[in-house]
Amino acid sequence: MAQTIRISLDVMGGDAGAEVVVPGAALALERHPGITFHLYGDEAIVAPLLEAHPALKQASTLHHCDVSVAMDAKPSQALRQGRWRSSMWRAIEAVKSGEADVAVSAGNTGALMAMSKFCLRTMANIERPAIAAIWPTARGESIVLDVGATIGADAQQLIDFALLGGAMARVLFGIERPTVGLLNIGVEEVKGLEEVRTAGKLLREADLHSLSYYGFVEGDDLGKGTVDVVVTEGFAGNIALKTAEGTAKQIGGYLRSAMNRTWRARLGYLLAKDAFDRLRQKMDPRNVNGGVFLGLNGIVIKSHGGTDAEGFAAAVELAHDMARNDLMPKISQDLLHYHRGRFAARDGSEGDQ
Amino acid sequence: MAQTIRISLDVMGGDAGAEVVVPGAALALERHPGITFHLYGDEAIVAPLLEAHPALKQASTLHHCDVSVAMDAKPSQALRQGRWRSSMWRAIEAVKSGEADVAVSAGNTGALMAMSKFCLRTMANIERPAIAAIWPTARGESIVLDVGATIGADAQQLIDFALLGGAMARVLFGIERPTVGLLNIGVEEVKGLEEVRTAGKLLREADLHSLSYYGFVEGDDLGKGTVDVVVTEGFAGNIALKTAEGTAKQIGGYLRSAMNRTWRARLGYLLAKDAFDRLRQKMDPRNVNGGVFLGLNGIVIKSHGGTDAEGFAAAVELAHDMARNDLMPKISQDLLHYHRGRFAARDGSEGDQ
Repeated sequence: MAQTIRISLDVMGGDAGAEVVVPGAALALERHPGITFHLYGDEAIVAPLLEAHPALKQASTLHHCDVSVAMDAKPSQALRQGRWRSSMWRAIEAVKSGEADVAVSAGNTGALMAMSKFCLRTMANIERPAIAAIWPTARGESIVLDVGATIGADAQQLIDFALLGGAMARVLFGIERPTVGLLNIGVEEVKGLEEVRTAGKLLREADLHSLSYYGFVEGDDLGKGTVDVVVTEGFAGNIALKTAEGTAKQIGGYLRSAMNRTWRARLGYLLAKDAFDRLRQKMDPRNVNGGVFLGLNGIVIKSHGGTDAEGFAAAVELAHDMARNDLMPKISQDLLHYHRGRFAARDGSEGDQ
Repeated sequence: MAQTIRISLDVMGGDAGAEVVVPGAALALERHPGITFHLYGDEAIVAPLLEAHPALKQASTLHHCDVSVAMDAKPSQALRQGRWRSSMWRAIEAVKSGEADVAVSAGNTGALMAMSKFCLRTMANIERPAIAAIWPTARGESIVLDVGATIGADAQQLIDFALLGGAMARVLFGIERPTVGLLNIGVEEVKGLEEVRTAGKLLREADLHSLSYYGFVEGDDLGKGTVDVVVTEGFAGNIALKTAEGTAKQIGGYLRSAMNRTWRARLGYLLAKDAFDRLRQKMDPRNVNGGVFLGLNGIVIKSHGGTDAEGFAAAVELAHDMARNDLMPKISQDLLHYHRGRFAARDGSEGDQ
């Protein structure tokens, strides 16, 4: 029998709220019948929507919440108004209490991160959380973190991100020792931020069994898929992510207008329509919907706020994969191993003195 | 009679050196017959190549240099070995001495920036130089700076970049009061780096006549062309630039493989070939080849090291446009105006006390 994965959903999060979350969850359940859901939201809105999805209704427990966090709420405001009782808070709290294995919300990122930190707290030996994005590459997918949680990470925090991202790559890609690169400008040792250089030196020296440190990578290595995991602080990571999304849209726009200019181009487009559909499918941001909050005592997945049911289903399926493949225990194990190694190294060097 | 623009070229710079620089300069000269060149390089290599380009030979003065800066030289090494006598140094020096209006090199960026700083020095009231890139957008072109010269710029340096970029936009796009945005993560005032927030506040308060401050922009605004000038510190700017280049290549790869998969797609491709050619032309990185070093007492243009003659010609033409439209005097004027305004504001507030 397949393992049951328990997922808590902030049903009110996202631009369309329950209208997208409920059918999205239903789609994910069709593909992974082993999921059970805890749904947090306004019963008057959610219950009628569930009627159209009997299988989901069957697999779900609905918990009524009076309060929803607004999409434009500031983190502090969301915490003040939504702590203890909002659908977002309670979805996260279900992870803390052990009722759910993972939480998913399409609510606003700042509020979701603030509440996740407040409720779940950072793991022992992790100072700051990271948001990990799945990045489509020329050779498949990579993990990029942090894409916006921790601005100006120091060397030790970058190393933490490497460990967290490495564990996620083992879980998501099934690679035993994923390659990890540090995002930098220029591959020479002399270049780049002091923190990045220091983190590179420490990662090389640590020679971890859970990941293979590749060295520095640059912005264009993201699309190439040079490494399985790209580590960076949140400011540059967020800029990179949004720049890539913007560039993809821009080229999509060029392509559409080029294919519409002449009757020959339009005819060519019709003939090659299958190819264009494949391309569109390949570039569809819904395929990789879901930012994974790492470094907290529990996993929270942030879905794009503006996604549709198909996109939300992808975020739920990502949550399912993370929980089924034991992301949290693997992270703990990797962290323990790394810190034991540091401890042993320090002991050893002290012994030599 | 058209104004003569005098351009100095590091003929030995770039992966292919004189083999690309000489025909590239010849192409630019065909399009702008008003250019005269100072060529710096190894006479034994350059002189024979000039024979194939009589018009260029006619418009050029060739200065022999024994030393060329290697493409993999570290900045300090390049300065030690190449100062006073390398083709790169002497091309820059020609700007300092007033023999040339602008210098162009396809040599390595770190060495070119180090030499440019050492030879030309930063302008009065400018602490750090910036590299400005021309960014193709959905609505035309924008200027993005800094893309790699100044890591971790503070608020005042970001304001300097705004002024420098604003002047360049007036020159390049002929806009009287270009819009300027600060690259940030999220458009709410609460988000992002402290320096970016402070720079935003100061720019808003300064209410400059030379530029219109738009506010924060995000990574996806780059491709949209939301503003004429995007200002950022060099680390994030370089990551953004390379990420966009990488994404464009990645999608190009997807498109090629999709169009090759079936005979219908291949036939469609043939019919729409004009459209694909337009798209390719639109995405051709050679169109926007040339990073402009700003903030120094003279203009230096960095061409991609791996470009071909057509790409190098684009960098020379960019140099031509910058000089012909009086970039340096416009920058000086804008800086003067900004600092007078600050001085007056301080005087005024002191008078009120």
